[in-house]
Amino acid sequence: MSNRKFLFTPGPLTTSKTVKQAMLEDMGSRDHAFVKAIKEIRSELLKLGHVSQEKGYESVIIQGSGTFGVESVISSVVRPDDILLVLANGAYGERIIKMAGYHRLNLQILRFEEDQVVSPETTDQYLLEHPEVTHVAVIHCETTTGLFNPVEALGLVCKKHNKVFIVDAMSSFGGVEVDIEKWQIDFLMSSSNKCIEGVPGFAFAICKKTELLKAKGQARSLSLDLYDQWLGLETNGQFRFTPPTLSLMAFRQALHELDQEGGVKAREERYKTNKRILDAGMTELGFKQYLDPSIQGHIISSFLYPSDPSFNFESFYSKLNDHGCIIYPGKLSKTNAFRIGNIGQIFPDDVRYLLECIKEVI
Amino acid sequence: MSNRKFLFTPGPLTTSKTVKQAMLEDMGSRDHAFVKAIKEIRSELLKLGHVSQEKGYESVIIQGSGTFGVESVISSVVRPDDILLVLANGAYGERIIKMAGYHRLNLQILRFEEDQVVSPETTDQYLLEHPEVTHVAVIHCETTTGLFNPVEALGLVCKKHNKVFIVDAMSSFGGVEVDIEKWQIDFLMSSSNKCIEGVPGFAFAICKKTELLKAKGQARSLSLDLYDQWLGLETNGQFRFTPPTLSLMAFRQALHELDQEGGVKAREERYKTNKRILDAGMTELGFKQYLDPSIQGHIISSFLYPSDPSFNFESFYSKLNDHGCIIYPGKLSKTNAFRIGNIGQIFPDDVRYLLECIKEVI
Repeated sequence: MSNRKFLFTPGPLTTSKTVKQAMLEDMGSRDHAFVKAIKEIRSELLKLGHVSQEKGYESVIIQGSGTFGVESVISSVVRPDDILLVLANGAYGERIIKMAGYHRLNLQILRFEEDQVVSPETTDQYLLEHPEVTHVAVIHCETTTGLFNPVEALGLVCKKHNKVFIVDAMSSFGGVEVDIEKWQIDFLMSSSNKCIEGVPGFAFAICKKTELLKAKGQARSLSLDLYDQWLGLETNGQFRFTPPTLSLMAFRQALHELDQEGGVKAREERYKTNKRILDAGMTELGFKQYLDPSIQGHIISSFLYPSDPSFNFESFYSKLNDHGCIIYPGKLSKTNAFRIGNIGQIFPDDVRYLLECIKEVI
Repeated sequence: MSNRKFLFTPGPLTTSKTVKQAMLEDMGSRDHAFVKAIKEIRSELLKLGHVSQEKGYESVIIQGSGTFGVESVISSVVRPDDILLVLANGAYGERIIKMAGYHRLNLQILRFEEDQVVSPETTDQYLLEHPEVTHVAVIHCETTTGLFNPVEALGLVCKKHNKVFIVDAMSSFGGVEVDIEKWQIDFLMSSSNKCIEGVPGFAFAICKKTELLKAKGQARSLSLDLYDQWLGLETNGQFRFTPPTLSLMAFRQALHELDQEGGVKAREERYKTNKRILDAGMTELGFKQYLDPSIQGHIISSFLYPSDPSFNFESFYSKLNDHGCIIYPGKLSKTNAFRIGNIGQIFPDDVRYLLECIKEVI
């Protein structure tokens, strides 16, 4: 077992052998077979969000990491006279704020504590007092802590006030049921190496077409021009600039495997089972979680450093690494913690193996 | 032979089996083994350009396609009061002009015909008359046609006038000897899926450190912030945002294989041999080249459509595709042509096979 490597991280994740093997054939970026694969991927992404082109949604693939996808949306759809409100309760909300600074967007910020969800009531009140806001952005699963923000309720609030609703669903999409239309999301972003269990290389956005069309000529960067990228893909099925061909072939295989597993519902169940086993085992080992269980999602958990002053994270990490288990450092602003992810090709027995290793190491 | 696929393109290219197999192990982005690989890659890239950190150069890896790397440099190093002169003789020069437009840079353009190299004499004269210019950008191998611009001579001119010299060496670096210090290049950009023969997923820039440091706080996008990206890599060896882990592992293997082949010199020779065989065979088949041989590089060639009016490129392309040979469409602004690349894991026998297929197809 120790020959395999397990990534208990928020991504890049452990992926299946067959997903990686899909990268063993060279592929031209204008190749007919490749263009067909892209078409299939784009359509499949819409299905995962329970939408379709017929329902008025489009999917756009953006080269680079997930952040590139988020920046592509933020810097393409918020126009010079628009005002973006960021609902922030962790590092990823702060990252959108940072992006807005680079692009000199009109920005407003509503911050919540890292251990609290974004409150729909507070947001409602804020929007009532700030009718000038045009766009609202929030993180679905704040990977900083692992909490789930109440996106459906926030969608209701945004639409009540007639705002464009942008959701960074980076670490949740594919591992949590998201109904883009019902939740009234106009732009949702995620990446190849999260719950769909592909390898890293690109991000994607699922966009309400009527809103996407408004981004024409508005982008602030050539590479990250969301509208032009979409137009290129629509015109001839090709990317404007070299795509990560093999990451995309791996992703198509990952989408097949997600379907074979039983879709998002089945995957969500597996991740939840991983989390239950992890929680029980870690509690038994004396670890405490940062978040209240009621707002904790099943993607990733933050565990507080043990009170024992001899605990050293670097040594803890390295020793687990020697056992083939990769965990993840913390990202909390005020508290020392480390993170363990439940996502990727990780099964209950792998979580039990991690728990054994942690027991041995501490 | 027909089971294999040959990419006679400017990239993504045919890569070795072992390069692709380097992607068969999952890799965490903060993993010690991965951090070590990145360090090795960054140092190896400097060596390929005959520079080093000791000589005052730094390499930065940027997620996304080659264009992302070019935009990262252009939008990070040309400050609000600077003036960028683009020397353009093809689509890739025009692309830098387009980028400059997105970022509202102060821009001047000196255009040359697509079938002519950028003239150092004309550039010298231009800079004499325009002392306000601060940065000069040029394409090394204009992939539009395949010509090589005289970068060394242009470097001399730029430094005579004390300008920052930016070279897009996308399709040449690794397949053409480039001495970054001797040629007086301040920023050179290329990508993973060109002559180093890796798979797509990222770009890189080799930067004169004194100039790179001036880019601090100047970038116009978070994802493409060249200075911050460098600082992240220098601080802890990690990327600011998820890197294409497996493309990078493939790239490290590709660098080893380039070294085993005998370095850039040996690879250049192989490509030149490919080109000689291609040229002779295509001439025999009645095809004419767009460029004068004296300015044609050995990376990629543009062939004019045959005068026979029944020639249909789409059908030509498809039939070659059925034989496992992928060629590339033209990109000339005024002339119909197609392109054939000599780069990647392509050997003389593969070029002969392509020629047989072309003979059969026309």
